[in-house]
Amino acid sequence: MSDATSTTPTTSAPLYITMHPHDNVGIVANQGGLRAGAVFASGLMLKETVPQGHKVALVDLPAGSAVRRYNVTIGRALKDIAAGSWVHERLLEMPDARGLDNLPISTAKREPLPPLAGYTFEGYRNADGSVGTRNILAITQTVQCVAGVTDFAVQRIKAELLPKYPHVDDLVALEHGYGCGVAIDAPDAIVPIRTLRNISLNPNFGGEVMVVSLGCEKLQPERLLPPGSFSIVDARSDAALDVVCLQDDAHVGFMAMVESIMRQAEQHLQRLNARRRETVPASELVVGVQCGGSDAFSGVTANPAVGFCTDLLVRAGASVMFSETTEVRDAIDQLTSRASTPELAEAMIHEMAWYDAYLKRGGADRSANTTPGNKKGGLSNIVEKAMGSIVKSGTAPISGVLSPGEKLKTKGLTFAATPASDFICGTLQLAAGMNLHVFTTGRGTPYGLAQVPVIKVATRTELATRWHDLMDLNAGTIADGTASIEDVGWQLFKLMLDVASGRQQTWAEKWKLHNSLVLFNPAPVT
Amino acid sequence: MSDATSTTPTTSAPLYITMHPHDNVGIVANQGGLRAGAVFASGLMLKETVPQGHKVALVDLPAGSAVRRYNVTIGRALKDIAAGSWVHERLLEMPDARGLDNLPISTAKREPLPPLAGYTFEGYRNADGSVGTRNILAITQTVQCVAGVTDFAVQRIKAELLPKYPHVDDLVALEHGYGCGVAIDAPDAIVPIRTLRNISLNPNFGGEVMVVSLGCEKLQPERLLPPGSFSIVDARSDAALDVVCLQDDAHVGFMAMVESIMRQAEQHLQRLNARRRETVPASELVVGVQCGGSDAFSGVTANPAVGFCTDLLVRAGASVMFSETTEVRDAIDQLTSRASTPELAEAMIHEMAWYDAYLKRGGADRSANTTPGNKKGGLSNIVEKAMGSIVKSGTAPISGVLSPGEKLKTKGLTFAATPASDFICGTLQLAAGMNLHVFTTGRGTPYGLAQVPVIKVATRTELATRWHDLMDLNAGTIADGTASIEDVGWQLFKLMLDVASGRQQTWAEKWKLHNSLVLFNPAPVT
Ligand SMILES: [Ca+2]
Ligand SMILES: [Ca+2]
Ligand SMILES: [Ca+2]
Ligand SMILES: [Ca+2]
Ligand SMILES: [Ca+2]
Repeated sequence: MSDATSTTPTTSAPLYITMHPHDNVGIVANQGGLRAGAVFASGLMLKETVPQGHKVALVDLPAGSAVRRYNVTIGRALKDIAAGSWVHERLLEMPDARGLDNLPISTAKREPLPPLAGYTFEGYRNADGSVGTRNILAITQTVQCVAGVTDFAVQRIKAELLPKYPHVDDLVALEHGYGCGVAIDAPDAIVPIRTLRNISLNPNFGGEVMVVSLGCEKLQPERLLPPGSFSIVDARSDAALDVVCLQDDAHVGFMAMVESIMRQAEQHLQRLNARRRETVPASELVVGVQCGGSDAFSGVTANPAVGFCTDLLVRAGASVMFSETTEVRDAIDQLTSRASTPELAEAMIHEMAWYDAYLKRGGADRSANTTPGNKKGGLSNIVEKAMGSIVKSGTAPISGVLSPGEKLKTKGLTFAATPASDFICGTLQLAAGMNLHVFTTGRGTPYGLAQVPVIKVATRTELATRWHDLMDLNAGTIADGTASIEDVGWQLFKLMLDVASGRQQTWAEKWKLHNSLVLFNPAPVT
Repeated sequence: MSDATSTTPTTSAPLYITMHPHDNVGIVANQGGLRAGAVFASGLMLKETVPQGHKVALVDLPAGSAVRRYNVTIGRALKDIAAGSWVHERLLEMPDARGLDNLPISTAKREPLPPLAGYTFEGYRNADGSVGTRNILAITQTVQCVAGVTDFAVQRIKAELLPKYPHVDDLVALEHGYGCGVAIDAPDAIVPIRTLRNISLNPNFGGEVMVVSLGCEKLQPERLLPPGSFSIVDARSDAALDVVCLQDDAHVGFMAMVESIMRQAEQHLQRLNARRRETVPASELVVGVQCGGSDAFSGVTANPAVGFCTDLLVRAGASVMFSETTEVRDAIDQLTSRASTPELAEAMIHEMAWYDAYLKRGGADRSANTTPGNKKGGLSNIVEKAMGSIVKSGTAPISGVLSPGEKLKTKGLTFAATPASDFICGTLQLAAGMNLHVFTTGRGTPYGLAQVPVIKVATRTELATRWHDLMDLNAGTIADGTASIEDVGWQLFKLMLDVASGRQQTWAEKWKLHNSLVLFNPAPVT
C-alpha cells in the first residue's frame, strides 16, 4: 500500500509551478503565498506579494499579449505586466464563456504520442476479450423492491459460501433506486436503463451475469438484458439469462427466495473461482479519471500529474476516460480542437448542448457547478477553472465520445459525458467498462467503490499526511518542490499497474469503503 | 406476529364484493370467474359468464343510468343492462380523464365521522409532542461522500455499543445520493433538501439529531438543518447542531473519523436508552398508506379494508396520509369534492398541475403510470383504476395537503403529494413524520424500511399463504367470503396498535428487510 506519509513538506524556498513549457505564468506553490522580493530558483524576483495558488508573470507580458496556462490562452493582458508581477483577474481581458457555435473542430493536429511498450499487469481475461482487475460476483437487480432480500442473501453468501471460493475477491449487489415507479418510456429513460445493463457487464464481473427480479416491475429482466447483450458462458444452462424471480410460485416463504439466490450465486462463484490472473499488456487498462472535493491545487498538482499519466496510458495503448460535463463545458473549444475527427467534435458539442438543455429544463444553468472562492483560490475565469479539470485528460487526441451510460468500444482517450457528481460520474464510468478508477481530491473525500479499485490522489501534502490511510498517492510533492509533475505521473502509472494486478490494495479496498451506485436518471419518476 | 397462513380459502360459493351500500355493481371474487347460471347468496343469478375481478350488475341498469362503484359514478350504461349481466367496458360510456378546470370544490359535505374513543398504544413520547413507535438512533448524512465511513462506524456501533443500550431498537444511517453535484439552487431543489431535513426529525428518532458531514459539500449542515428547525435536547452541549465533519483538522487518519462518529453516537444512545414506552392515545399514530405491486384485487380487498381502517384512525383522532399522485390523478374530482375547505381543494389541484408539468417537461404524461392488463383485470377506465387507489383514503373529509417532502402539521386525513414509486413515496411519508406504514400488495413485494414498521397487507389468500412469512395481514379473506371489508379493517386497526406498541414485529422487521431511501429530486444534477 502506498504510504502517503513518507513525504513531508521539506522546502519553504519560493516555488512556482508551470503546467507546460509554453506557459508564461506560474502558480505560487508556497503555503501562505510569497512576499515581494522573494526570488525563485530561476532567478525571477517577485515584484509584489502573491497569494498561494495565484499566478505570477514569468516573462514581461505586453498589453494585449496572450496569457498562457495549461498551454492554453486563458486571457489577454489588459496592460503591460512585468515579469514577477501578480497576474490577477483584474489584469486579464476575460474570454466570454464559449457558446456552442463556431468552435474550432479538430484543429489541434499533433504528432501522435510515441508508443510506450513493455508495461504489463496481471489481470483476469474475460471471454469477451476484456480484462478484469478484480474477480467479483455481481448480482444485478432489476428494481429496488428486491434490495432487502438480496442483501439478506448476500450476507449469507459472504458468511457461508465465499470462504469456500478463495479466488473470488468479493460479492457485490448492484443496488439502485430505479426499475419501477419511473417513466420507463420517456425519451431519457434510456440513460438509467443502459447504465444498469452495462454495469452488469463490467469486466470486473467476469461475464457471470445473474439477476434478481421481483416479477411485476416495469424494468423486466429481458428489457434490462435483452438476448444478445452478452454471451452466456454457462455451458450447463439452457443459455437463458440467469434470473431469480422472487414472485415465482416456487418461492414459498422468504427462505425459499434466499436459497434460490444462494444456489444460483454458488454456480457463478464456482466458475469465478477457477479463474487465475494472467500477464496482459497495460493496453487492457480501462481507466476512468475524475476529481472531487477540489481545491486551488487540484489543477496545479494532482490533475496535471493525472494528465501526464493519461498520456502514458494512451501511449501504452490503454483506454482512458475523462468526464464531468459541467466542469469542462466552459473550455469546450479545447476539447473540440483536440477531437481526432470532426464527427467526434460534433459528438462532444451534442453532449454539451444536451446538458445545457437539461439544466435549463430544471431552471438551472452551468453556473450551478461553480463554487464560491474560485477567484480567491486564484482562478481568474471559468476557462481557467475548466482547464484545471480538463488537464486530467493530458494531451492526446480525443478519439472517442460516449453518451451517459454507454459502453466503451475504443482504446485511447475518450470523453465520457457524465455529470460531475462523484458518484454519478463513477457509476457511469463503471457502465462504460472502467476497470480502474483514479480520483483526485484537495479538500479530501473518502470515496470508494465496491466494483473497481479507486486510487485516490491528494493535491497537497498536508491532506496526504492527515489522511495518511485514505489517500493512495500524494501529488502535493509537486507543490513542495520535491517532485515534478512527470515524477508523480510516473508514480501513479506504476501504482496503477500494481493495483490493477492485485499486488496492492487501495485504502478504500482495505477499509471496504463503498459508496453507493447513483444512477443518472434525467427522465421523470412516476 | 400475524400468521397470514391461518386463513385458507374455504369457499367456492359464488361471491361478489361491493365497496359501498350505494354501489350497483359488484366484483366477482371467485378464482377463475363464474359461469352463467351461478347464483349468489343474495339470490342474484348470473346471466352470463363473468371473469374474476370483473363487474356484475346487481340491479337492472337502464340505459343512461349511473354505474356506481366505490360510491362513485364510474360511467353510464350505454344500453339497458339487466341485473346479473357482465358490466364490461364496452357497455359503459367512458368519462373523459379529468382536466384541472371546473372541478367540484368541497361539494361532498358529509356528517363528520363519529369519534372512536378508548384506543391506545404504547409509544415513545418526544420533547416536541410527537410519539415514536420505535426508539432508533438515526445518523443524518449531508452527502453521499460520507456513506462509506458512516457505514463502517455503524457496523462498529452495532457490534460494540448497541448491546450496552438494550432499550434502543436500532441504529440507522440515513444514506442518500444527494448533497453535492446537484443544482442546489434550482427551484425544485427544495424538495430533496426538505425531505432530508424532515426525515431527520421523524418521531421514531427521538429528537436525537446527529449529522455526519464531509466539509466541502454543497448541502452544508446549517443549510440542511438551520437553527430553529428543531430543539436541541442536549443540555450538556452548547446547543449547536451535533455535526461530525470528516474534513476537520482533528481527524488524523480514518480511525479518528470513525471514533468521532462512535463517540457522538454514544451520547445519543445513552439518552435514547433512558426512554420508556408510555400509554398514549391512538390519535398519536401518524400512518402513511400506499400500495405497490397491485393486482385486480388491490382495489377490491386490501385497499378497501385499508380505507375502512383509515376511517377508524381518523375517528380516533389520528393522522393518516395517502399519496401517489399519478395513481389518484384521474379521479381528482373525487379528491377536490372531499376537501374540507376550498383552499385544500386548490392545493390538491396545484399538486396535480405541478406533476402534470413535471412529467411533460420530461417527455412523459400520466399514462406513464398505467399498466398493461388493467382492462383484462376488470378496470373499465382510468377513473375506476384511480378509485382503486383512492379507496385507501376511506370516506373522511380531506383536511390537509402536503407538497413532497413537507412535514405534517395536522391530524385527520391528509393528501401527501408524492410519486407512486414505493420507495420515493415511503421516503416522503417518512419526511412527513409517519410513525407507521401500511402497504398493500397483490403481486407481492418484500418491502421494508429501517426507519418505521411496515405492515404489509396481501390482496389474495394465495399470496398470503405462499408468502406466509412476509405478509402481515391477509385481506384475501374478503374475496374468499370468510371476512368482510369491515372485519379486515378492524383486524388491521388492532394490528397497527400492536405493532406501534412494539408488542408485535412486522415480518420486514423480523428479517431486517430494509429498502433504501430514494429521494425525489425533480431538479437537475450537475
Ligand atoms: Ca471534478
Ligand atoms: Ca467529480
Ligand atoms: Ca400504488
Ligand atoms: Ca406505491
Ligand atoms: Ca445502500
